[in-house]
Amino acid sequence: MKVVKRIDEVRAAVRQARQEGKRIGFVPTMGYLHEGHLSLIDRAREMTDYVVMSIFVNPLQFGPNEDYDRYPRDLERDERMARQRGVDLLFAPDVAEMYPEPIKTTVHVADLSAPLCGASRPGHFDGVATVVLKLFHIVQPDYAFFGLKDAQQVAVVSRMVRDLNVPVTIVPCPIVREADGLAMSSRNVYLSPEERRQATVLYESLQWAKEAVATGLRDWEALKRGVRERIAQKPLAEIDYVDVLAYPDLVPPRGVPGEQVLIAVAVRFGRTRLIDNALVTLE
Amino acid sequence: MKVVKRIDEVRAAVRQARQEGKRIGFVPTMGYLHEGHLSLIDRAREMTDYVVMSIFVNPLQFGPNEDYDRYPRDLERDERMARQRGVDLLFAPDVAEMYPEPIKTTVHVADLSAPLCGASRPGHFDGVATVVLKLFHIVQPDYAFFGLKDAQQVAVVSRMVRDLNVPVTIVPCPIVREADGLAMSSRNVYLSPEERRQATVLYESLQWAKEAVATGLRDWEALKRGVRERIAQKPLAEIDYVDVLAYPDLVPPRGVPGEQVLIAVAVRFGRTRLIDNALVTLE
Repeated sequence: MKVVKRIDEVRAAVRQARQEGKRIGFVPTMGYLHEGHLSLIDRAREMTDYVVMSIFVNPLQFGPNEDYDRYPRDLERDERMARQRGVDLLFAPDVAEMYPEPIKTTVHVADLSAPLCGASRPGHFDGVATVVLKLFHIVQPDYAFFGLKDAQQVAVVSRMVRDLNVPVTIVPCPIVREADGLAMSSRNVYLSPEERRQATVLYESLQWAKEAVATGLRDWEALKRGVRERIAQKPLAEIDYVDVLAYPDLVPPRGVPGEQVLIAVAVRFGRTRLIDNALVTLE
Repeated sequence: MKVVKRIDEVRAAVRQARQEGKRIGFVPTMGYLHEGHLSLIDRAREMTDYVVMSIFVNPLQFGPNEDYDRYPRDLERDERMARQRGVDLLFAPDVAEMYPEPIKTTVHVADLSAPLCGASRPGHFDGVATVVLKLFHIVQPDYAFFGLKDAQQVAVVSRMVRDLNVPVTIVPCPIVREADGLAMSSRNVYLSPEERRQATVLYESLQWAKEAVATGLRDWEALKRGVRERIAQKPLAEIDYVDVLAYPDLVPPRGVPGEQVLIAVAVRFGRTRLIDNALVTLE
């Protein structure tokens, strides 16, 4: 595995791989890798011949009162894990390489950026769309792999790619969970032992919701109420949002057969904000 | 010259050219070609091996009360001129090919989109940036050629390319003028004979301004006043703006040696809005 910090080094390495006839796979991350990220590498290795991973904690997608400064970082450990899992090229730029001057250009995806995390984190998805597009232009991959834990991010990026004719195929990948159901997240390390125990309520309430939909519930307000009530049973849980939307358009579901419905939650435990979701296809 | 209407046809043709080791040049236009456009083809042929021209009147960059519907179009004539001048691939999509569904993604270049034509035409440069980025993703050129008559457009697109790491080099090309100095524009056909005669005042007043700066004038308000007074002598001329800004940042000039200064004007003659400018480097 080659590790580079500069954009021109990425371009040179990818150009070479492409000249060898290889398909390029790309896994953008903010590092502090876990099994969720590693599963994206696996998928990229299945579908492509040369796997590029980026590790960049993007200041643009953090709000002023968010956890940019304390976001967990451990590049040495990440390098080891990426190498072991079969990444070919690791791109770990510093902020000055990605933003050598104040960026004036913003990519905004209307409607899809507004609800859910977009409402709690104003500007977040503009920051995501903008940095992802920058990374696409730097790496120029054939396929890019994103985890569905950030289902809204997948929706926003996919729409941007379609709207702007970006020559890349987005591959959404399933959520990876701990044994007790908690979705893998770099932010899980923030949790105290007691918070960590109570955090399983996200998965449990989503499981209940999936089951309720499977057995015919179509009253979305009642569904949200049920999820809220379950989460509220944990004293350390502070609900940010619980929502039910059609996927990937993120509009109120019509409730028709074949429709994909996203049940999404964001919950704070102390200073830690966790998200999780379930996607169900209506019968 | 190959003429195509579909995105996948452009991609296939460019892929083939690239496999033959050719450098790709791109000239985006709204058609109704004149010598200004044709000079871009010449430059593209000098610098690259495969010249793609697009002809697309982009609805996204026209305001609701602007001339989208009556913008002049003559694809047959354009095809003839492009073929004769040495274009290899002409891409002339219809609106449904470029916007198969309502576009939700907007590219916005802050500050640079605000003054001059950005002030007179709200949203114009978002529409320009967005469609140009789409076209870049479709054609994937090595070089793209833009005329400096739209100096602000060159500034906006260049900044977008730098901010988003778009893998293309922007080549700004000089303004081409009629014998009497009027800058070439597809919109010149709108002018009545009398308007056409009076329209030379744009060039004449800019020539005066260049001369004034060359001989030491650094009072920008006085410079603007001088340009305004000259234009106002033509009874059919209605000034939209006269401005003097540092280029390409479009901020007030500091007046220091080596600084590039843009003197830009927009003037209406009846229903026709013309723009022109002069770029001077301060001594």
